[in-house]
Amino acid sequence: MDILHYQQEFLKYLTSKNWVQEPKNLYEPVDYILQLGGKRIRPVLTLMSADIFGKDYQKALPAALSVEVFHNFTLVHDDIMDDAPLRRGKPTVHEKWDINTAILSGDAMLILAYQYFENYKPAVFQKLAKLFSKTALEVCDGQQLDVDFETRKDVTIDDYMNMIRLKTSVLVAAALKMGAIVAEANDENADLIYDFGLNLGLAFQLQDDYLDTFGDPETFGKQVGGDIIENKKTFLYLKALEVADADAKKKLKYLYRKKLKENSLKIIDVTRIFRIHDIPLLVTQEIESYTEKAFNTLSKMDVSASNKQKLKDFGLWLMNRTV
Amino acid sequence: MDILHYQQEFLKYLTSKNWVQEPKNLYEPVDYILQLGGKRIRPVLTLMSADIFGKDYQKALPAALSVEVFHNFTLVHDDIMDDAPLRRGKPTVHEKWDINTAILSGDAMLILAYQYFENYKPAVFQKLAKLFSKTALEVCDGQQLDVDFETRKDVTIDDYMNMIRLKTSVLVAAALKMGAIVAEANDENADLIYDFGLNLGLAFQLQDDYLDTFGDPETFGKQVGGDIIENKKTFLYLKALEVADADAKKKLKYLYRKKLKENSLKIIDVTRIFRIHDIPLLVTQEIESYTEKAFNTLSKMDVSASNKQKLKDFGLWLMNRTV
Repeated sequence: MDILHYQQEFLKYLTSKNWVQEPKNLYEPVDYILQLGGKRIRPVLTLMSADIFGKDYQKALPAALSVEVFHNFTLVHDDIMDDAPLRRGKPTVHEKWDINTAILSGDAMLILAYQYFENYKPAVFQKLAKLFSKTALEVCDGQQLDVDFETRKDVTIDDYMNMIRLKTSVLVAAALKMGAIVAEANDENADLIYDFGLNLGLAFQLQDDYLDTFGDPETFGKQVGGDIIENKKTFLYLKALEVADADAKKKLKYLYRKKLKENSLKIIDVTRIFRIHDIPLLVTQEIESYTEKAFNTLSKMDVSASNKQKLKDFGLWLMNRTV
Repeated sequence: MDILHYQQEFLKYLTSKNWVQEPKNLYEPVDYILQLGGKRIRPVLTLMSADIFGKDYQKALPAALSVEVFHNFTLVHDDIMDDAPLRRGKPTVHEKWDINTAILSGDAMLILAYQYFENYKPAVFQKLAKLFSKTALEVCDGQQLDVDFETRKDVTIDDYMNMIRLKTSVLVAAALKMGAIVAEANDENADLIYDFGLNLGLAFQLQDDYLDTFGDPETFGKQVGGDIIENKKTFLYLKALEVADADAKKKLKYLYRKKLKENSLKIIDVTRIFRIHDIPLLVTQEIESYTEKAFNTLSKMDVSASNKQKLKDFGLWLMNRTV
């Protein structure tokens, strides 16, 4: 399977870089977070996209690295904001060092992400940097909306879909479009692969919401029920408020009114309300609908059937995380 | 005098922008910090430089804005790290809002700074963005060194000069070079005006150190003695350690060993040690030496005598902040 190959090539490139320069206190956290692992989904997409549009995917490695460094920058700063102690089972940067270090090393990563585009000629450089800036600002917008939603009582499903589009999907979409830009694909193809990524990104995030509550604790990687503990207004919660009767609605709102020390009963209660109201099915349908939308975009794309299949395989692989 | 004119034109451009977009909680702090005032030294330099190299300075407004937005981004994040309550007599962003807002709004500003370069054609865009990334990383390096110096006991004057070069001077130099890039000046001129800015920036920062201790409280704007209160290893302190006899050296180190609640006696003691050892004279000589170096660069520059005079006038104006 190609995905594994792209992953390996990307990791080889990532580790070939000498991250730790002077001053060490600035660059050691950069090295730390980048070596922490993860599936490297976004850089793999950049490489695959360049490949599909007929360019040696090795040429897309700097752009892929930019996307991954940016993604990790958002993790470093978001973890400060969320006061998160762990990331992939290891201490977060602000826990291992301190908040000031996490702020400044994060800033440096955002700048480094731009620097990798310097490997490309001016016209490609500008296209990449423009897409990157637009995307990066959208990710900030999404993060802010996510924060705002914590205290807002009038969040709708549309609001939520817009937030996850900005916070998660646009970067998946941009990762793919960057591969197209490096390969100098035509604008129509570049826009189509962006749309493919946008819908796949939405499906992916909704699946994340689903797994957060209904996933298998053995394989999920994060704490199952985490969103419920945090009173997160996810698709599951908002959909339940939409379809539930008055009593269940009241109970759900009551359960989400404050954060608790001991959460096992709360998780059981909320999960039961979700199940009674068929939320697992409703979310699954929504996930399938966005995956379908993504796959439909492929039919309009001007690339070979085998390349379309590659993208489809990736989508299936991504969505095939088991519950 | 041209400086006032550039300042006004820059402010007109700055305020013509609609900073507050949605989500408001992200962009209101951006608007707030940018409207907080200041002498707008860096954007004025970009405009003046474009003008000197024969370009309508209005064309340099987006690049000038980029420099100012970046500078203000560093203020927002540095103020978190320094736990500073006030900036230009007003609450800092993290005080008026909170730390998370200051982190995220700062991130957005760094991205916005790159976006203004999109006003230029690809070749100019790439040159600007490359210089900007290099400079921005250097400023991060400088900030990290400044933090590191707080706990290091072996800081030399060379270390210190390197730190202020990175933290302060490279941005002054880059602001000037950006004007040259927009004006499509030749590389030699662009490098010369960069060197002019680098030396002027060093002189400026040394003067800031001088004024922090020996400035007139009525006109200085910051608290006189602030560096002494904070035990900052400035040029004054490091030079005193270099030239003082063993007793005075011991006393100085003793006075800098911890932070106090009540500082008036400490300020008097340290200031007296500085005076006894001729530090005011020694710093003034150093300031003059860097200013001289900056002015010498001008003689090699391929522009008219009147344009050289403009840069010199700016240097004199900048260094003429009264004690």
